[in-house]
Amino acid sequence: MRQEAEKIAEAAQDIHATTEPGHVVGVDLGGTNLRLALADMSGTILARWSSSTAAMRGPEAVIQLVSRGVESMLHEVAAPREALRSIGIGVPGVTDVDNGIVIATSYLMGWREVPLRALVEKELNVPAIVDNDVNMAARGEQWCGSAKDARDFVFLAIGTGIGAGIVLNGKLHRGSSWAAGEIGYMLVPGAAEIPAQSDDPGALESMIGGEGIKNQWQKLGRLEGSALPIEFNATEIFDRAVEGDPRATALLRQSATMLAQAIYNITLVLNCPLFVLGGTVGLHSALCDAAQKMLDQWIVSGSPRLVRSSLGTDAQLLGSIRAALETTHACSIPSAVCANSD
Amino acid sequence: MRQEAEKIAEAAQDIHATTEPGHVVGVDLGGTNLRLALADMSGTILARWSSSTAAMRGPEAVIQLVSRGVESMLHEVAAPREALRSIGIGVPGVTDVDNGIVIATSYLMGWREVPLRALVEKELNVPAIVDNDVNMAARGEQWCGSAKDARDFVFLAIGTGIGAGIVLNGKLHRGSSWAAGEIGYMLVPGAAEIPAQSDDPGALESMIGGEGIKNQWQKLGRLEGSALPIEFNATEIFDRAVEGDPRATALLRQSATMLAQAIYNITLVLNCPLFVLGGTVGLHSALCDAAQKMLDQWIVSGSPRLVRSSLGTDAQLLGSIRAALETTHACSIPSAVCANSD
Repeated sequence: MRQEAEKIAEAAQDIHATTEPGHVVGVDLGGTNLRLALADMSGTILARWSSSTAAMRGPEAVIQLVSRGVESMLHEVAAPREALRSIGIGVPGVTDVDNGIVIATSYLMGWREVPLRALVEKELNVPAIVDNDVNMAARGEQWCGSAKDARDFVFLAIGTGIGAGIVLNGKLHRGSSWAAGEIGYMLVPGAAEIPAQSDDPGALESMIGGEGIKNQWQKLGRLEGSALPIEFNATEIFDRAVEGDPRATALLRQSATMLAQAIYNITLVLNCPLFVLGGTVGLHSALCDAAQKMLDQWIVSGSPRLVRSSLGTDAQLLGSIRAALETTHACSIPSAVCANSD
Repeated sequence: MRQEAEKIAEAAQDIHATTEPGHVVGVDLGGTNLRLALADMSGTILARWSSSTAAMRGPEAVIQLVSRGVESMLHEVAAPREALRSIGIGVPGVTDVDNGIVIATSYLMGWREVPLRALVEKELNVPAIVDNDVNMAARGEQWCGSAKDARDFVFLAIGTGIGAGIVLNGKLHRGSSWAAGEIGYMLVPGAAEIPAQSDDPGALESMIGGEGIKNQWQKLGRLEGSALPIEFNATEIFDRAVEGDPRATALLRQSATMLAQAIYNITLVLNCPLFVLGGTVGLHSALCDAAQKMLDQWIVSGSPRLVRSSLGTDAQLLGSIRAALETTHACSIPSAVCANSD
């Protein structure tokens, strides 16, 4: 089931750097935004393109949009259509990489069993690879981010949704039905006791995902009244916590506790030394610092190290570029390249 | 760090069945009992020996006891001392397999940094392998138990302590500091919110480990009075639940819920299709059935399958024999052998 993805990853390790001409495209497909980047065969980003997907749910419409973005970027760098060698697409959902099928996206998009790879390959006439977006981000971090050259690490994306990309012995661990790392549903003290159904936000997600934190802020505001705007998002709330607002501080503390509990539970299972935090919520330094402090107290010797993603919101895009390059079987991208890209 | 263990495991897969003479010993070292078995080079058990370790804590005394047991079994089968080829020892704690060092045992024994392999090899003058006892049990289940030929599974031992042996892609996942699967400390709703220190029983262990269940039974009895003996152990309590006692039923239900929550959390991380339950508590069919029902309700498609260990309390012993055979580099034990052993 996972053989093809493994073969591609292994092949990529053996192939030497190439100066051959051509371009690849990386795609970060989200519930509200579509982001594309065009790179040369060394992985250096040459152009970017983005669009809203807010009113767009069907795969066909999304693929048309991807195609438009690809044409636009090729035009921008004055490259012919034939210069495109491959495309990598990160998708917010459980994805069968071997067969290129999006098994299920989160409650935001609602895709089920979409043969995305075949659809994209038919449209663009180049090899495509599709993978879960958090796995793509983990590839990016391993290639040229905070987990550069790490053998074992977990990439934790905390945005609206929460997910983990798990790298063991240098390879993504995908699980027997491609669903490893779906930790937004994790049950920790203080969260729901019974798991959410897969169409709803998960137990952990409801508490420390972007929407979850906003909801709790609003609930607190209604209960107690507040001098601070009720429309604050997670980042703004955490910023105010740093400035000393007591209610924001309490919410930051609660979020950090549940994040630390989730990381603690994952550590018990995997004994992984490094967690890279990404996503709009996960990138906030106050959250990372507070969770690290708790873990250091809880695990006296050898608590895992938490670091914020050095690639930020580009992790998924860079991972998709990396995957596209590996798909051409003609890459061995020096890890330094993408750090200075763009 | 894990290379040696991996090399041994790989070598073992390539070696053909042998009829060569000789014997190996498997050891299950527990906090209260020491159990040994002598097997021929095909893995068939020829003799057993056991002793109490209740008043015995120092490694040297335990090794003397192991040596006595080995001599006794060799004598029983009329084999000379030279017939012993290797020994495998399962230890209740975090164990560095490559260097043969018991890093830390549970709160029951209190060993720290004990070079057990070197001590045993010096005493017995044959190659030894030491590993965590739950990992040994997972080896046993994979060799000839409920996980026979499974590529991905988790062996869950629930006795006084709780631990997991995690097999991914056919190999034990040990973690970066040999501590993968220490899930007795897992934080789930209803358990402690802050992790226990490593010298104390873990949060999950305190609730659904053998002692934890006994403690709660006694607490319930003191609070409410009870027609049933307050000294019941977990198995007896679960038996009475099956017979309809309401308080025992409530405790079974609570234990099954927390077990299902822990398995659910592990599944989110690993996406593993099979859990084998072992240990005196884990072997109770009422617990396994109740937890399976909950998981099937929570995960509509593709909940993991729970099965009770077919090897029962012999899983660790058989895994230790298997490890000892692999250490000789001369085994390829047909998986059917041990099923009918003894």
